[in-house]
Amino acid sequence: MSIRAGIVGYGNLGRGAELALSGAPDMELTAVFTRREPEALSIQTPGVPVYAVSEAKRFQGDIDVMILCGGSAKDLPEQGPELAALFNTVDSFDAHTDIPAYLTKMDKAAVNTTAIISSGWDPGLFSMMRILSGAVLPAGNDYTFWGYGVSQGHSNAVRELEGVIDAVQYTAPLETALSAVRSGANPSLTARQKHKRECFVVAEEGANLAKIEQNIKQMHYYFADYDTTVHFIPHEEFLRNHAGMPHGGHVFRTGMTGKEHKQVMELSLKLDSNPEFTASIMVACARAAVRLAREGIHGAKTVFDIPLTYLSPNDRESLIKELL
Amino acid sequence: MSIRAGIVGYGNLGRGAELALSGAPDMELTAVFTRREPEALSIQTPGVPVYAVSEAKRFQGDIDVMILCGGSAKDLPEQGPELAALFNTVDSFDAHTDIPAYLTKMDKAAVNTTAIISSGWDPGLFSMMRILSGAVLPAGNDYTFWGYGVSQGHSNAVRELEGVIDAVQYTAPLETALSAVRSGANPSLTARQKHKRECFVVAEEGANLAKIEQNIKQMHYYFADYDTTVHFIPHEEFLRNHAGMPHGGHVFRTGMTGKEHKQVMELSLKLDSNPEFTASIMVACARAAVRLAREGIHGAKTVFDIPLTYLSPNDRESLIKELL
Repeated sequence: MSIRAGIVGYGNLGRGAELALSGAPDMELTAVFTRREPEALSIQTPGVPVYAVSEAKRFQGDIDVMILCGGSAKDLPEQGPELAALFNTVDSFDAHTDIPAYLTKMDKAAVNTTAIISSGWDPGLFSMMRILSGAVLPAGNDYTFWGYGVSQGHSNAVRELEGVIDAVQYTAPLETALSAVRSGANPSLTARQKHKRECFVVAEEGANLAKIEQNIKQMHYYFADYDTTVHFIPHEEFLRNHAGMPHGGHVFRTGMTGKEHKQVMELSLKLDSNPEFTASIMVACARAAVRLAREGIHGAKTVFDIPLTYLSPNDRESLIKELL
Repeated sequence: MSIRAGIVGYGNLGRGAELALSGAPDMELTAVFTRREPEALSIQTPGVPVYAVSEAKRFQGDIDVMILCGGSAKDLPEQGPELAALFNTVDSFDAHTDIPAYLTKMDKAAVNTTAIISSGWDPGLFSMMRILSGAVLPAGNDYTFWGYGVSQGHSNAVRELEGVIDAVQYTAPLETALSAVRSGANPSLTARQKHKRECFVVAEEGANLAKIEQNIKQMHYYFADYDTTVHFIPHEEFLRNHAGMPHGGHVFRTGMTGKEHKQVMELSLKLDSNPEFTASIMVACARAAVRLAREGIHGAKTVFDIPLTYLSPNDRESLIKELL
């Protein structure tokens, strides 16, 4: 029987989950749940109903897994445990330092269900690469680079500045740093040596551009430790060229076996759409959550806990034959 | 208690396993088993005994896992099931088309033990990337490139030619192909468009070099479908410059989410020592085999069946806190 999935939250991530479900041969979208007026929401899949999140509990038994597409700051800490008590869930909780506490909360809620938390690519695929490569090369160093791509947090920080109408921030790894790491040289790198930042800003008419630029470049935590370039552009150009959400990055483990031999492992992603890719991982993890639950393996899980066969729609025998 | 490991077979892979065990905080090398005269074998770790393989069964209960470092053609089909009936095992069985049959044989043997087969990097890490990326991007293509590195099979094929004293063959991916795949263009590539081959050959004095070169380049399966360069070099130069066993490669999944967005995933390895790296993966899998066995999960397993936490010496809580 097809896995019946619900989507909770219909922003970029929710729309990405809808798209990923349409490409999953063994899954179907049963309903979308929103905090907005359900009537006001127009979704892409014909015939799929939209309900208020508050109605979700009515669907216990009719939905096998809820894909939680809310944010880590406000939505998930509340929605996550509430829904995990009723449904198998998957989310992309990405507030790194709060993950252990969130895991504990979700584990308490998921008594008769399975909740996979923090799926996505970082946390998620990149984390899988870190645990795997660290197990293989215990004597070594991890390096994570992000970009070229849009950082929502940094974009928001710029948007909040006085005189700014709209803004987007691109994070880019420095080629010199990538090359040094790829060579196996195990360099020590400062924040400034690893990434640079580029902002495209639409300013209010008559705004003090020099002041805005200075406010960006001096912003503690977000920009002060990086070389940042600021471009002021017209609103039309902004809308035309900066509506996409590309991202990507590189995770490295570089280490030695014995005293002589350098070994370099690298996982790279180059993504035209960050939310669609993140949602694609969440949908694979949603499949795994349902399978674990059917085997009676309940509680909160992470990508570290799931055998890879659980993520694929294909059976173990054919996976071993074709992909091993 | 530390995991007590035995090594079966003391060639390059066995020496690599010994090295990897010395770097594993939770494992120790208990004994080495060889088909050669045990007295004739000098191993690197002081105080570790060497025995004939035929004596292995005496160590049931004293060794938690046997790391099988024999080859796929002759050693493992026989040693694998014999030892898996007595011990938890890990091997790097890499005859791709024979894996399903080998898995079945090992599964029958491993009634009260756990046998992880086909660990290494291909099959192994590359396979993990293929299953994971295929689950995330169901609409897409896989590409695997090998090299720059030494292919043992191709080197052996050249060595067997008349007039050849010694030889090594390096496989190299073509940069044009790598770039095309990395761009997300989803190209169709022939064998010749993906890899080139480079041979360094020591010929007998007075041998017909043109004939040797022709015999190499026309060799069915190994070389005929590739652009191959042949260099004849003196024996001293061969010994000085071509004693290493570097390797590496790239696995890609390039696909689309929706109709618009290209997504590119790439796992790359650049290895100074292929056997030491392969053995490092086997040792991580040996740890997993013991843990699975302790939980009563018996039978033959692959890297597709193991949650990633089982590979690491660190506990789940700290892995989630530090790496997720």
